[in-house]
Amino acid sequence: MESSQTTKIEVIGHISSCFTEKFAIPRQPGLAPSACARLKLAEPFNRPEMVRGLETFSHIWLLFMFHDAVEEGWKATVRPPRLGGRVRKGIWATRSPHRPNFIGLSVVKLEDTDLSDGVELLLSGVDLLDGTPVIDIKPYLPDSDCPAGAAGGWSGEAFAALEVRFSPQAREFCSAYERNTGSPLATLISEVLRADPRPASQRSRREEFGMLLYDVNVRWRMEEGGCVVQSCERT
Amino acid sequence: MESSQTTKIEVIGHISSCFTEKFAIPRQPGLAPSACARLKLAEPFNRPEMVRGLETFSHIWLLFMFHDAVEEGWKATVRPPRLGGRVRKGIWATRSPHRPNFIGLSVVKLEDTDLSDGVELLLSGVDLLDGTPVIDIKPYLPDSDCPAGAAGGWSGEAFAALEVRFSPQAREFCSAYERNTGSPLATLISEVLRADPRPASQRSRREEFGMLLYDVNVRWRMEEGGCVVQSCERT
Repeated sequence: MESSQTTKIEVIGHISSCFTEKFAIPRQPGLAPSACARLKLAEPFNRPEMVRGLETFSHIWLLFMFHDAVEEGWKATVRPPRLGGRVRKGIWATRSPHRPNFIGLSVVKLEDTDLSDGVELLLSGVDLLDGTPVIDIKPYLPDSDCPAGAAGGWSGEAFAALEVRFSPQAREFCSAYERNTGSPLATLISEVLRADPRPASQRSRREEFGMLLYDVNVRWRMEEGGCVVQSCERT
Repeated sequence: MESSQTTKIEVIGHISSCFTEKFAIPRQPGLAPSACARLKLAEPFNRPEMVRGLETFSHIWLLFMFHDAVEEGWKATVRPPRLGGRVRKGIWATRSPHRPNFIGLSVVKLEDTDLSDGVELLLSGVDLLDGTPVIDIKPYLPDSDCPAGAAGGWSGEAFAALEVRFSPQAREFCSAYERNTGSPLATLISEVLRADPRPASQRSRREEFGMLLYDVNVRWRMEEGGCVVQSCERT
């Protein structure tokens, strides 16, 4: 540590993820089980013995940098999207990226460990932007990480899942994409959209929305009771 | 961030805790519910509006520095005490302090928020050394922080709780201490000892052990089926 007030942190690896832009990333991990990512560890943190025993855990914690929020700086209070953007909460009472030190915390599913070229962890259920720098990995310990009787405070108000429909073009595109790449694109789109990724400020917008998943530009529109995926195309 | 590989972190506050030395600190939070601490936030991170809404959560995450481990450096593999010190696990498969970046993660109970002089959070169930520098606070979200079906890997082997007995002197000292300070010393001692705080390397030692809780030097000895607190005295 440099002094009692600052300390220098090294990035131990980077995330490659299906979320190639910030818009539409689920607001917590686990909301989109089909959202996959790889964590490639960097030297000197990628010695195979450093992950010995990790494969016995189903889930891991990632500590990472909200690298895309750093430029905008931190805020003392924020308007959580889950509250419709109408109420301000203190930054320490939220998981917002716009926090001092810009450190994120997500529990993700550990699907596999690939030691063929350094160390790569295969993850699912992620809420991580492509390129995210990771600063720590910890095994998930249900005994201590799930305290009995924990109450979710203001965040406890669950969102109503939206119904997601596909146009014929979108449905066809997804089938072909899945055949070619093995990535479950239609399921991922459904998981992302049912949680309503629109920022609170855009809830009244009637035009088409767009989001980038993998290398696919997905266009959708809100309709009575849900949303319709209108088109998909490669960027 | 300074470059893609390092980033500078600011300490947002410090912990005052009953654990005035490293020896005998529980190896995970929640094991000693009576273990109390205060987190005093530092400027500019202690504006009262920054904790608005936090009081609605029963538990919070603390990200902190294992400041006492920094000098010893990080290790690629460690021998977790829970496995009796006989087996090496990769550092990423453990919660050991001797990890790159020396960042710790604990969920603790939020007992109260004291805004009378800046911001102080009153905590219980801690596993934090007195003086610990904290770098982030996040609300605990049971929905996303407790993934269904998470399996605890090698750590799942629970320890057998030790029986804890007190000598007449120790029992009397604790009663007087509790009257004078309001701190539940006897309960805390029991909670700490029943989890067997001895390092694996000292499991065969027959002499007395000592530990510091608050300003009290606690001496105990292992006996058939448990341990006996022999004496307590103020340092």
